[in-house]
Amino acid sequence: MPNGLIFYEEHKKGVGLFIRAHKVFHSEISPIQKIDVIYNEYLGKVLLLDGLVMLTERDEFIYHEMIVHPAFLTHPNPRRVLIAGGGDGGTLREVLRYNVDVVFLVEIDRRVTEVSKKFFPDLAVGFNDPRTRLIFRDAYDFIKETNDKFDIVIVDSTDPIGHAKKLFEKDFFKEIKRILKSHGIVVAQTESPFYHIELMRKLKKAVIHLFKHTHFYITSIPTYPGGIWSFLYLSDECDPNVIKGSPPQGLRFYNPNIHKASFSIPNFIKNELEE
Amino acid sequence: MPNGLIFYEEHKKGVGLFIRAHKVFHSEISPIQKIDVIYNEYLGKVLLLDGLVMLTERDEFIYHEMIVHPAFLTHPNPRRVLIAGGGDGGTLREVLRYNVDVVFLVEIDRRVTEVSKKFFPDLAVGFNDPRTRLIFRDAYDFIKETNDKFDIVIVDSTDPIGHAKKLFEKDFFKEIKRILKSHGIVVAQTESPFYHIELMRKLKKAVIHLFKHTHFYITSIPTYPGGIWSFLYLSDECDPNVIKGSPPQGLRFYNPNIHKASFSIPNFIKNELEE
Repeated sequence: MPNGLIFYEEHKKGVGLFIRAHKVFHSEISPIQKIDVIYNEYLGKVLLLDGLVMLTERDEFIYHEMIVHPAFLTHPNPRRVLIAGGGDGGTLREVLRYNVDVVFLVEIDRRVTEVSKKFFPDLAVGFNDPRTRLIFRDAYDFIKETNDKFDIVIVDSTDPIGHAKKLFEKDFFKEIKRILKSHGIVVAQTESPFYHIELMRKLKKAVIHLFKHTHFYITSIPTYPGGIWSFLYLSDECDPNVIKGSPPQGLRFYNPNIHKASFSIPNFIKNELEE
Repeated sequence: MPNGLIFYEEHKKGVGLFIRAHKVFHSEISPIQKIDVIYNEYLGKVLLLDGLVMLTERDEFIYHEMIVHPAFLTHPNPRRVLIAGGGDGGTLREVLRYNVDVVFLVEIDRRVTEVSKKFFPDLAVGFNDPRTRLIFRDAYDFIKETNDKFDIVIVDSTDPIGHAKKLFEKDFFKEIKRILKSHGIVVAQTESPFYHIELMRKLKKAVIHLFKHTHFYITSIPTYPGGIWSFLYLSDECDPNVIKGSPPQGLRFYNPNIHKASFSIPNFIKNELEE
């Protein structure tokens, strides 16, 4: 095993990922959670929240492109966007590639954004954009109380433990539906089909009667549990299989073939979701 | 980190997978390589060759279905099959789902097959099938010397180190081409696009002028490096995008949508392959 300071993330029953921290850039306990930034020679800087990998410089583009572009390219005219969570700025960066009017980013932990500004400048590019409204608040409370309406709502949450747990429940999605404009789309990150299928099954049951189109899509993210990750696409009017625009220039993962491919679900996941 | 006996597989520069071995079923050094069978509560039994994960009971179906079914369902009438490597029997099991006349399995290490028979009965089901010809020999030498011809050749090798290195080189694919029947297809496992892109690039250069159709396809395999794995599909007459049959019953991963999806390549892999 590698020498030095080793980060371990156990995914289930003694199976997991290890990363040698060649250097630890930052380590703090904010009022919300533990925040660490470590550096590994292959992955680059890695952001850890409560001891779990949130992103690495090497593969963050996959998660952030895949949580944003499928919704944006199936919506007829996305102008008003809400990001619940996503305080590191990666999702915001991808959203700002489009001609939007305004993006609300509602992050519970101000320190995540400050740490990202300092250590992940490639992610934090959108914080000073005039279209960005940065709100440091619990996204659940914000959505419950707002009277604003949005074309696209993206739930870019941490894992369903602690303060993020309620972002995976039916009530939350009901509240989101209330603030959607016509042709509105919701996308949420929904964990690993290899390790968290029960969560996906529960979520499916919670939203299936709330929206006409409820589809999971999946992609490979090497530093997430199982290297395979799922997202949930919800809409009444928009069909995830009908691509309406061309992707922005410069994407490193997403293309229209990958879009269609990501909605193809392996048999075992389909079967386990239907149980 | 988990208690107990821990297996580590470093994929690159201090990044890798760990697996707690709740029990070690078997451990030997054969004339060819080190062979271990460990047991983990989540993954089930795990076969290690020279300290690398070859398969786990929990996710082996993905690899074995994806190395077999794309070729079989794009070939008009696959009857004669050669498997180079694959001594555990998983690939053989999938091949025998079809109405084939004969399957040659050429494995360098007799002990791998014996260990699989003892500890992985779900993989070893095909060894006693009357259509199976089991040959314990270096696949490179066998292919160089044989005058038999095959409809489909599957290169189910270990990683490109030691005795398997030559199975990733141009000469080997030239020899395979010589033993292909008309409409012949070759499929080879070609490692992780996240960790081994140089190998894929080198292979592409080696085969691109040998066959009319040379396509990589990719899939998620949670216990392989990066959770993402690639295969190479080679044929003069068969097009991987033209599915000619219906998949056998009972598959847990493969379906025709997954088939098409797997040939969709993310931008960064496409770009790195073209460098």
